[in-house]
Amino acid sequence: MSQHQLRLASTRFYKVFEQLDLEAMSQLWARNVPVSCVHPGWDLVLGHQAVMDSWRAIFEGTSELHFENEEAQVTAGAEMGWVVSRELLRTTVQGMPVENTLTAVNTFVLEEGVWRIAHHHAAPLLAGRPRSTRAKETVLH
Amino acid sequence: MSQHQLRLASTRFYKVFEQLDLEAMSQLWARNVPVSCVHPGWDLVLGHQAVMDSWRAIFEGTSELHFENEEAQVTAGAEMGWVVSRELLRTTVQGMPVENTLTAVNTFVLEEGVWRIAHHHAAPLLAGRPRSTRAKETVLH
Repeated sequence: MSQHQLRLASTRFYKVFEQLDLEAMSQLWARNVPVSCVHPGWDLVLGHQAVMDSWRAIFEGTSELHFENEEAQVTAGAEMGWVVSRELLRTTVQGMPVENTLTAVNTFVLEEGVWRIAHHHAAPLLAGRPRSTRAKETVLH
Repeated sequence: MSQHQLRLASTRFYKVFEQLDLEAMSQLWARNVPVSCVHPGWDLVLGHQAVMDSWRAIFEGTSELHFENEEAQVTAGAEMGWVVSRELLRTTVQGMPVENTLTAVNTFVLEEGVWRIAHHHAAPLLAGRPRSTRAKETVLH
């Protein structure tokens, strides 16, 4: 499986996230390995049930959101791979448009010919911490 | 390669981190895949040189630190694997002891029989975000 397929899996994950579609989200996650999730600022969320509960809580608290991501590194092996990206998130909070930038890594495993997500880790950029100006220069694709 | 070997690689990474040993840290990182790092609150750091520059900056600004980690999930494939953990970090800031809890995922690739780290992502827990009380129940090892 190619980096291209892995990139498509990453794109599909964020599309389902935007659609706030819990059933579709459930289908994207790996079945043969333990899954885990770290939402921005959250503690570890471990196991399929807890991960899906966390998505339910997020989807229920969200009316709309839109991602424009910069994939910085896509690394595909024969059975596992991961995508490192910067999530450019637009949403509305009490009617006000809000933009936020997060860092993310999404780790996938190949199951029955399909890249399924096994770990999602998104983190906020904090004021006063270094920001990269070189990320785009090292994009691999 | 077993989960046990992967766990040893994770332990070695944090030992070198505690020792603030830049040369040893450099040796731990993968050579055959693009590497990346997200320190708590930082933007993406991409590529071996930038990653090592980031460790130099962190080591130079740190006098001592100690990790007591809870590894929550260790997933080892034939060529890649990752460790999801909670980092319990103790350090001193202006002579005052400080404790902090972070979430982390460390992704490794097997190179010449050695698990080398390819991606490190550590993130702060933020006030008001959900904390897990079930993490220990789903520890796999």
